[in-house]
Amino acid sequence: MTDSHAAPHPFDAAIALEPAGDGRFRGEPHPAWANMVGPFGGITAATMLNAVLAHPARLGEPVALTVNYASALVATPFEIEARAVRTGRSVQHWVVELVQDGEVAATATAVLALRRPTWAADELGMPAVPPADEVPVTPTFSKVEWPKRYELRFQAGPWPDLRLDAELPDSLSTVWIRDEPPRPLDAPSLAAICDVFYPRTFRRRQRFVPAGTVTITTHFHADAAELAAQGARPVLGVARGLRYASGFFDQRAEVWSDSGRLLASSMQSVWFKE
Amino acid sequence: MTDSHAAPHPFDAAIALEPAGDGRFRGEPHPAWANMVGPFGGITAATMLNAVLAHPARLGEPVALTVNYASALVATPFEIEARAVRTGRSVQHWVVELVQDGEVAATATAVLALRRPTWAADELGMPAVPPADEVPVTPTFSKVEWPKRYELRFQAGPWPDLRLDAELPDSLSTVWIRDEPPRPLDAPSLAAICDVFYPRTFRRRQRFVPAGTVTITTHFHADAAELAAQGARPVLGVARGLRYASGFFDQRAEVWSDSGRLLASSMQSVWFKE
Repeated sequence: MTDSHAAPHPFDAAIALEPAGDGRFRGEPHPAWANMVGPFGGITAATMLNAVLAHPARLGEPVALTVNYASALVATPFEIEARAVRTGRSVQHWVVELVQDGEVAATATAVLALRRPTWAADELGMPAVPPADEVPVTPTFSKVEWPKRYELRFQAGPWPDLRLDAELPDSLSTVWIRDEPPRPLDAPSLAAICDVFYPRTFRRRQRFVPAGTVTITTHFHADAAELAAQGARPVLGVARGLRYASGFFDQRAEVWSDSGRLLASSMQSVWFKE
Repeated sequence: MTDSHAAPHPFDAAIALEPAGDGRFRGEPHPAWANMVGPFGGITAATMLNAVLAHPARLGEPVALTVNYASALVATPFEIEARAVRTGRSVQHWVVELVQDGEVAATATAVLALRRPTWAADELGMPAVPPADEVPVTPTFSKVEWPKRYELRFQAGPWPDLRLDAELPDSLSTVWIRDEPPRPLDAPSLAAICDVFYPRTFRRRQRFVPAGTVTITTHFHADAAELAAQGARPVLGVARGLRYASGFFDQRAEVWSDSGRLLASSMQSVWFKE
């Protein structure tokens, strides 16, 4: 996404890593992606995936990524170690750890594969929504930095009004999403987009309660060619919570191409305080 | 589940581990849980979770578990290493590796937590199905061993007739599930039950094509008390595939208590051959 004459896109600047030998890479949280505490989880996921993709032993394309957030990152350099623990003929398994100030701050596992043509079918269908250019851009939620890195067009379930404190019956959000400024879609940016759906407790309760993702898993359905075909046009995100109980809830998400193909499916478990 | 006067339940026999020091445990695939190649993935997931639960540094109960299957296990002893990479006040992150014959055969990450009362809501509703005792027991799929370890009552989407070779429009299965013989539900058995839903390609295509789970993620919603309240009665499982493309597909599952509470939600990515 970078050319020699221009500053890198803010996404590429944030996931940039410097090789440090032996499958290790150095990076640093980028202030443009700050969340309330630490960076946006999606950018951390993309950065850890980027370590795998940049590793010389890499085989193929991402099929699955799980990122576990062990503590909020602070604004100092970190190191990521990516290990290919098993490489088969067409599938490769990775274990990744992000260490900051001598402690593990995040872990990840990734499955990569050489994808080949097979029988194919789309079983889950994209919800019927107006195209992106018929949905107005939603003003950015201003308290934090990272939402400014996306152009969001909420068709349903927009940013909550956290002063309302009124419980809603469901947490569904349907939103057209693209990087701001526009950037052609690839696996790291898709991994980040899967975390754009803010905690569903905010949506359900229209109230601020401390919350943070503890783990997110994303399955990639599109190969590099299909992602490239999507280019920088908006993708459709759909997310909703399942059950909220005893300090944790989970939310599912799907991300669709503008031609109605499922690009990624995701689920995350989120801690909340009260 | 074991008392001193009886042989252990086949589930407990299969997930049994012998401590080997430094967070390491020894185990061996149990022939009662054999799949077409290697053991049933659900029993491997339960065994890796059991290593975390048996570890002296364990804090709290499972919230999330991701298991990555790097190669089929063979019928020889294996070693599992479980590392608590970060322990907070109430949340603990684990990285687990299963090594057999000197190679990593499976990896896992787990999030455990001390769960506390909070605001709670059930957003996803259980589908309306007849109670377990009104759904006949489905005869076991006979080619492999592990299905005999469950009593399954398919309300929809039963075992495929793999000779039909006729494509179906969806892959939905709805099935009451309990261990056979009955065994009170706990987190390891729930982790295994989340993998009971055979590859959705078999269901969609009514045809056998080589397939195997590469990764499964399960989020646990019920705490130990809620699992204990379910006891050994059947739980309702619901599963369906989302998209099948380029050698991989994913399937989602929910497991419900017989009182209609979501006990666990799960997603897995499955490799298939053609």
